[in-house]
Amino acid sequence: MRLPRGFAASGVRAGIRKKRPDLGLIVAEDGATAAAVFTKNLFQAAPVVLSKAALKKTGGRVKAVVVNAGCANAVTGREGLEAAKRVRARAAEIVNCPQDEIFLASTGVIGVVLPDKKVTDFLPDAFARLSSGGVDALSHAILTTDVGPKIAQASFTLGGKRGRLVGVAKGAGMIHPNMATMLAFVMTDANVAPAALQRALKQAVDRSFNSISVDGDTSTNDTVLVMASGKLGNETKADLADFSRALESICRELAWMIVRDGEGATRVMELEVRGARTERDARLAAHAIATSPLVKTAIHGGDPNWGRILAAVGRSGARFSTKRVSLSAGPVTLVRDGQPTAYKEKDAAKVFARERVPIVVDLGGGNASALVLSCDLGHDYVSLNADYRS
Amino acid sequence: MRLPRGFAASGVRAGIRKKRPDLGLIVAEDGATAAAVFTKNLFQAAPVVLSKAALKKTGGRVKAVVVNAGCANAVTGREGLEAAKRVRARAAEIVNCPQDEIFLASTGVIGVVLPDKKVTDFLPDAFARLSSGGVDALSHAILTTDVGPKIAQASFTLGGKRGRLVGVAKGAGMIHPNMATMLAFVMTDANVAPAALQRALKQAVDRSFNSISVDGDTSTNDTVLVMASGKLGNETKADLADFSRALESICRELAWMIVRDGEGATRVMELEVRGARTERDARLAAHAIATSPLVKTAIHGGDPNWGRILAAVGRSGARFSTKRVSLSAGPVTLVRDGQPTAYKEKDAAKVFARERVPIVVDLGGGNASALVLSCDLGHDYVSLNADYRS
Repeated sequence: MRLPRGFAASGVRAGIRKKRPDLGLIVAEDGATAAAVFTKNLFQAAPVVLSKAALKKTGGRVKAVVVNAGCANAVTGREGLEAAKRVRARAAEIVNCPQDEIFLASTGVIGVVLPDKKVTDFLPDAFARLSSGGVDALSHAILTTDVGPKIAQASFTLGGKRGRLVGVAKGAGMIHPNMATMLAFVMTDANVAPAALQRALKQAVDRSFNSISVDGDTSTNDTVLVMASGKLGNETKADLADFSRALESICRELAWMIVRDGEGATRVMELEVRGARTERDARLAAHAIATSPLVKTAIHGGDPNWGRILAAVGRSGARFSTKRVSLSAGPVTLVRDGQPTAYKEKDAAKVFARERVPIVVDLGGGNASALVLSCDLGHDYVSLNADYRS
Repeated sequence: MRLPRGFAASGVRAGIRKKRPDLGLIVAEDGATAAAVFTKNLFQAAPVVLSKAALKKTGGRVKAVVVNAGCANAVTGREGLEAAKRVRARAAEIVNCPQDEIFLASTGVIGVVLPDKKVTDFLPDAFARLSSGGVDALSHAILTTDVGPKIAQASFTLGGKRGRLVGVAKGAGMIHPNMATMLAFVMTDANVAPAALQRALKQAVDRSFNSISVDGDTSTNDTVLVMASGKLGNETKADLADFSRALESICRELAWMIVRDGEGATRVMELEVRGARTERDARLAAHAIATSPLVKTAIHGGDPNWGRILAAVGRSGARFSTKRVSLSAGPVTLVRDGQPTAYKEKDAAKVFARERVPIVVDLGGGNASALVLSCDLGHDYVSLNADYRS
């Protein structure tokens, strides 16, 4: 795949991870307008702290992105900040731009200071390999326990011109409820002002990545960055509707890929809680279901054990009348008005055996709703996480 | 083990579960003063609904307890209530007491109506087998995925007389955050008025079972019942301090057994969050850590991956300054004032390899604290829960 006009990328091995590419570089040839959303975790990794401040200082300008896997550089105090600053300084020299136009991102083990010399030693190599087709190498260099790379593209019409969006992401971890770091970088040739870009991103993230991580339930490093090179040459006053739709679509596709690639995951639960009195109630209920190990293991086993779903809703803190609750899995209604229906076990089992398991819980008390994607919990998750660091 | 004076118990096979005892009976020969705490889940099982109402009507009198495993009789609507009522009516006939003095409890799969005929068919058999030593049979008849029975005893001095407490419990499930049903029945020969008994129980539960399930985070059937036969013959005005201490001790011992017997558990994390500004902050942080699959799998692997612990605290919603956080595992301080210490990996690994893993997180911002017990998450948990119903 090729990047939108104005961007080049690369991915190399810097030796932070054993025998796997672990250093990615994105350069916007003539710079780019940028907008980002970051983790709400109180522990914010050094690269998050620096990138957030830099973006504010520049008013939304990014020239290059340096991203590494293998080390999150989080909860590393002053030392971690200094290491990240050294990377930033070296990148600014190589790319030839102000330091604040360097955007940093890291993913990997928490509590270990970034081995910045490995990064700076290999930055010239990454710079030399930059190309429009380098997005594939980039997509590999940012992975941790991900099974495979995640790339998506979309096109849009803006001010009468046809533009492109290309996004890369990494996720894994079980994402939900304990996100491993989620990183996403979206590049476009559109010409969009920073404030408008931020608004479009915020909306796209709310309807995609935030439906897998749920408010604030984020790791120390989560970052979603969108960069617009402006090479499309559209008027900045052009109607952004189609661009925003395409941005949302690409974010949803990447979010789906992240959930599907949850550690050890074999199925995705597409969960909707509707009929809630307030959005908060809907989110509480959806969160309780999506994070329940009992529900996630039942999904893993393809077992339509819906009692676990309702038990999770009942303890979630959401307010509702148990006599009005209904629950369905795909076309099969399992519970209506708080009572089990005469459904056939075989029909329910069929839905739970799918790769996508659609579950709808209707609280029967209002109009608020919440959508969440979650994956199953299987043996591979335990194997991957019981000894992740060794 | 023998029950305190005034009680007899039994356990038999009624055919609800395959080839395992599943029906327990406790009878207080001359009745007992009783107090109970129930699940806060909005979905309350039929036996919970009936027992709660009955206890209120009688002002705290119980003659007999009928408990079954294999079917929770929860989310079963009117049919489930009718089934439970038929069990209650038959038990009242057999034991010869008012229906409201029959206390019901069930545990097992949610969403299936209790096969009450199996219960009523075997109640006479259970009645015939009642004995003071029947507590062992009882302790087996209430189990589901528990590895083994849970019995504890304690003694106390009340009004100058030496009395006894005997408790049986069942737990399993991962308990936390999705309790499988937790049931506990405690019997004593003490003579205690219902209101005083309820106060003592409330305090004991707050310091034991509620430290494994955390506020409201309960299944549809959770029940803790204490019954006092009064056979000790003490004055009701006697000082309850030693009795309360013994009751708390027995509840703590049963709670510990429940966590240790968490499905697939090999270790218990003894977690303390201190230095919080408010108790709510302490509980939020403790809850986030104790329920984190990433933390629980790390504990399973004996891996001192403390970054996952702090990441959980950071997203918990608790308010604190990241620069003041300290974390230790047993005698090893891993993080001080938000920065990793120069601890030896070997020393940390030793603590995480214990059967009891003591973790202290100090938020450095106040005097509130919270204690929680949690177990690790391993392959056996997945195996047990991916196909629990078959």
